Amino acid sequence: MQRSIATVSLSGTLPEKLEAIAAAGFDGVEIFENDLLYYDGSPTEIRKRCADLGLAITLFQPFRDFEGCRRDRLQRNIDRAERKFDLMQELGTDLVLVCSNVAADSLGDDEILIDDLRLLGERAGARGLRIGYEALAWGRHVNTYQQVWKLVRQADHPAVGVILDSFHTLSLKGDPSAIADIPGDKIFFVQMADAPILAMDVLEWSRHFRCFPGQGEFDLAGFLAPILRTGYRGPLSLEIFNDGFRAAPPRQNAADGLRSLLYLEEKTHKRLEKEGHQIEPGVLFTPPAAHRYDGVEFLEFAVDEAVGARLSGWLERLGFAHAGQHRSKDVSLLRQGDINIVLNAEPYSFAHNFFESHGPSLCATALRVKDGAAALQRACDYRGQPYRGLVGPNEREVPAVRAPDGSLIYLVEQAGAGQTIYDSDFSLDANAQASGGLQRIDHMALALPADSMDSWVLFYKSLLDFEADDEVVLPDPYGLVKSRAIRSRCSSIRLPLNISENRNTAIAHALSSYQGSGVHHIAFSCEDIFAEVARAKEAGVPLLEIPLNYYDDLAARFDFDDEFLSELAYYNVLYDRDAQGGELFHVYTEPFEERFFFEIIQRKGGYVGYGAANVAVRLAAMAKARSGGLKRPRL
Amino acid sequence: MQRSIATVSLSGTLPEKLEAIAAAGFDGVEIFENDLLYYDGSPTEIRKRCADLGLAITLFQPFRDFEGCRRDRLQRNIDRAERKFDLMQELGTDLVLVCSNVAADSLGDDEILIDDLRLLGERAGARGLRIGYEALAWGRHVNTYQQVWKLVRQADHPAVGVILDSFHTLSLKGDPSAIADIPGDKIFFVQMADAPILAMDVLEWSRHFRCFPGQGEFDLAGFLAPILRTGYRGPLSLEIFNDGFRAAPPRQNAADGLRSLLYLEEKTHKRLEKEGHQIEPGVLFTPPAAHRYDGVEFLEFAVDEAVGARLSGWLERLGFAHAGQHRSKDVSLLRQGDINIVLNAEPYSFAHNFFESHGPSLCATALRVKDGAAALQRACDYRGQPYRGLVGPNEREVPAVRAPDGSLIYLVEQAGAGQTIYDSDFSLDANAQASGGLQRIDHMALALPADSMDSWVLFYKSLLDFEADDEVVLPDPYGLVKSRAIRSRCSSIRLPLNISENRNTAIAHALSSYQGSGVHHIAFSCEDIFAEVARAKEAGVPLLEIPLNYYDDLAARFDFDDEFLSELAYYNVLYDRDAQGGELFHVYTEPFEERFFFEIIQRKGGYVGYGAANVAVRLAAMAKARSGGLKRPRL
Repeated sequence: MQRSIATVSLSGTLPEKLEAIAAAGFDGVEIFENDLLYYDGSPTEIRKRCADLGLAITLFQPFRDFEGCRRDRLQRNIDRAERKFDLMQELGTDLVLVCSNVAADSLGDDEILIDDLRLLGERAGARGLRIGYEALAWGRHVNTYQQVWKLVRQADHPAVGVILDSFHTLSLKGDPSAIADIPGDKIFFVQMADAPILAMDVLEWSRHFRCFPGQGEFDLAGFLAPILRTGYRGPLSLEIFNDGFRAAPPRQNAADGLRSLLYLEEKTHKRLEKEGHQIEPGVLFTPPAAHRYDGVEFLEFAVDEAVGARLSGWLERLGFAHAGQHRSKDVSLLRQGDINIVLNAEPYSFAHNFFESHGPSLCATALRVKDGAAALQRACDYRGQPYRGLVGPNEREVPAVRAPDGSLIYLVEQAGAGQTIYDSDFSLDANAQASGGLQRIDHMALALPADSMDSWVLFYKSLLDFEADDEVVLPDPYGLVKSRAIRSRCSSIRLPLNISENRNTAIAHALSSYQGSGVHHIAFSCEDIFAEVARAKEAGVPLLEIPLNYYDDLAARFDFDDEFLSELAYYNVLYDRDAQGGELFHVYTEPFEERFFFEIIQRKGGYVGYGAANVAVRLAAMAKARSGGLKRPRL
Repeated sequence: MQRSIATVSLSGTLPEKLEAIAAAGFDGVEIFENDLLYYDGSPTEIRKRCADLGLAITLFQPFRDFEGCRRDRLQRNIDRAERKFDLMQELGTDLVLVCSNVAADSLGDDEILIDDLRLLGERAGARGLRIGYEALAWGRHVNTYQQVWKLVRQADHPAVGVILDSFHTLSLKGDPSAIADIPGDKIFFVQMADAPILAMDVLEWSRHFRCFPGQGEFDLAGFLAPILRTGYRGPLSLEIFNDGFRAAPPRQNAADGLRSLLYLEEKTHKRLEKEGHQIEPGVLFTPPAAHRYDGVEFLEFAVDEAVGARLSGWLERLGFAHAGQHRSKDVSLLRQGDINIVLNAEPYSFAHNFFESHGPSLCATALRVKDGAAALQRACDYRGQPYRGLVGPNEREVPAVRAPDGSLIYLVEQAGAGQTIYDSDFSLDANAQASGGLQRIDHMALALPADSMDSWVLFYKSLLDFEADDEVVLPDPYGLVKSRAIRSRCSSIRLPLNISENRNTAIAHALSSYQGSGVHHIAFSCEDIFAEVARAKEAGVPLLEIPLNYYDDLAARFDFDDEFLSELAYYNVLYDRDAQGGELFHVYTEPFEERFFFEIIQRKGGYVGYGAANVAVRLAAMAKARSGGLKRPRL
């Protein structure tokens, strides 16, 4: 299908928007009237510019408050339409969006509405133009596609058709299934927008909170499927009013928009297949299927020699063993349980470049996948950027794609004993023995720039077929943190994504220390939290101190005996219990050189969260530690 | 009354909050439980710290989900309460806020609720403590103060009373008048919060959008008046959940909080007087009455000699006459109609310091007031910072107060001919003759940091008794601009305040060029726009070029003949018409050295706005001009 986007969805001047839209790979563009009004050039110039860029002008919009207008204004409104038709002909587009009248004094009588639509269709048709009629969710008399179709059917004019917009239907909890009854050739245009579900005035919701498909909570595949079943194969166009998008860099944002359309197409294709409906090949985007994951294969940190030595020391105190050295590079491997950590200090490497620009940081994450080639193909089909590094002797080439912050995501296939990447690339120390009982990487949290959350979520949802949990808002002493966890469908890989719009929060500090975004928090799971934390404490791991008042409150909330509470407090272990009785025990380290910190966690009874109830106390303790540390003697 | 604030209203650690609260001049503080939980010190330490700071702990809060809890949880809840009572005794406060139960499985039977409240009161009373029961707007069974009072009355226990919170009543459009029927001694505590009127879920609204009294849209004086009529003279406490406040510097924010309480007290005092009710003196804040204004007396720009010469040139091309020179300083006066502009290049002056830190900018605004001394007293009573500069020979001392950005607001009394400040301080040129017909300063717009709008609005509302119009949201090509106009009640002084959260908007550019905030836009009114703009154009004033497409759209919207439209377009004049037929004609200059620009406006038929309909095209034209200017040949 033709992939299109409305200019109102992006920031910038009209030429900047058009260039971004073309660069992202769209085929068409809706020209939003105001963008043209504010442009210092003629419509003909825009027509030429679009042609040069390979963009069809799919629609001119909007034309407001026409049908059912006060009768003394009808002639004036027709004159207004004729002027806009002139403009459309200059632009070289044949379709205008007429949105349902919102004026308080507009008339709602069907006969009048039908006559007005037919009259406008007559005028448009005489010039070879068409009008598409769309129900605004807040239209005075017409606010559903069912009403629109009824009026269009009765107007019965070849130049008058239906325009469908997912937001206007789904925001009112409308049922899209009856769309399948509209003849495909009477649907003139389709606009897609997602949105978070918000309990607010629908007009405000629409004007400020729309987002790209896959970034919100609407069932857009459920909206698009019946449209395709009508035989409609016209443009699929994004029309997103979003305060953030109005300020976002247009190229990046347009690229996200295209990716979101591809994602919607994949979902819709699956939906139609499930419903037993075949769509001819090539109509919808169908990348290689998503594949199963089996957790994180390894984490790679960019370090230099000095940082590497210090980080290695930290990890060894956390129970890791130095398990191997790369055969030809300055890269070492630390291991514990199922956890592999690679410290890369090799000069002239990707990691070195990353270190130069980001300092000590996580520069790559390797995910265990079933089929590395298919996984890479899928990522590339979704416009991901593949990465090929230098492959030295004795090294395996591993498919990789760049994450939005420039770090790498390796896609590593499972291998049998003696066949792993560690066997081929490293000299392994057969006697290495971890001193701790940490088992797996439970999750890794990323600090992101405040306006990039949606972009990251879409990246993981589309390229890697991850799922996203709901956003939670967490209080830091100096502002709010918004967190949204993404995870593989099997939940073996979990990544809470964190943003903060405020300057002095822990997330903002992590971000500024990363000069971009990055993993600032890595949680290791274990089966006996007290054994692990006792060992870590003994080994000198600096644990984040938790105020005693926290434990007084635990005592009021839960039926713990004093001895157990004292043990929790002594080891700075935090506790949470979910509604189903699942329990979480967790403890944090202080940050390693202000860059990232580690967490040891034990889940019991099916606890699936991340201890959100304890984030506030952790953030307060971290703020305190940043400003000079806790002073109080411990128990 | 005792002025108090809840710790949750401010950002920072508990000690930071307490210090800010004391510094602002509050008498008391509500300790929000979480602030204590996250504090690494004992409740006794907080008690001592508050005592040192002169703060009474007016309340501990909240205690949740008690009354009507599932019967199998009652004992556990009582144990929980006893633990919190221990804490309160350590803190040294006798009052706890019990908010109405929100649990889905809680019981709503009156008898049970009454028994539970009485039981809790019994336990509290036995220790000399009290419980205050408050209705949450989203309580499961109890969500109005009327219900609360009915239950408290029937519980009939001396340790059980009512807590009132303006938000919980006004958010549900509750009528506060029946509060007057509650005996004053059964009201244990009063919390005040304002909010903008938002059509959204009340819980979300409450948690994120509350603001200080006078910053929102609730009739808080109408809520407080009946409370005072009951004889209640206890604490008046601010409890504000606001995302911005959670990140704002706590000292500045606490100072705003205190100012907002004073403002509320003044309003309430007036309300009670109007209702024929006398409150004993000293209970409420009663500053000197606000006074009438008669427009802007003069504007003073901080310049150096070179900038002064260039700005003087600009103003002369705009029709101003060089009307005088200061008797002892490097300060010149330009005049046209009723407009006086002072260019101050004097070294070692306030203006010079301002120039050093802000560059060429407006450093002072003089307002014409009836009684300068009373105006200054009012400003100081509202914790304004008075300013006294060096007064040289032949100079008059003019009362002044600092605006939030450090610029000065002079309060100048009207004077007879020959007695003005210009006569005393300047050598006037009797022959100076303005060449233009500009008449008055219509308005001046300020660019403010994104998070400071509420603070500025409160400053003008309280110190100067100005009013504030509703906020409007305006699109810039690179983001959104939010604008809120404040004005003297007579409308002779008007100041649109503008903020933008986005980095590349015109407002953000103005801000960064001001290194703070400042006037970036000054509008002069006239009676014949075409005469003025023709003269200005002829004199070489650079006018902001408006795209021709704008005029095509005007043609579609209004019934103008082509000749008139051509004239508008030729002179780059923008046009707006309001619903009552009032008309606005206005034209903009390009910015003077990227700092501020001027506007010439003509209002017809009672048009009272600022041309919001044209702001988008103006911002687009300015963005275009910033990036290299318009290229298209004009008509």
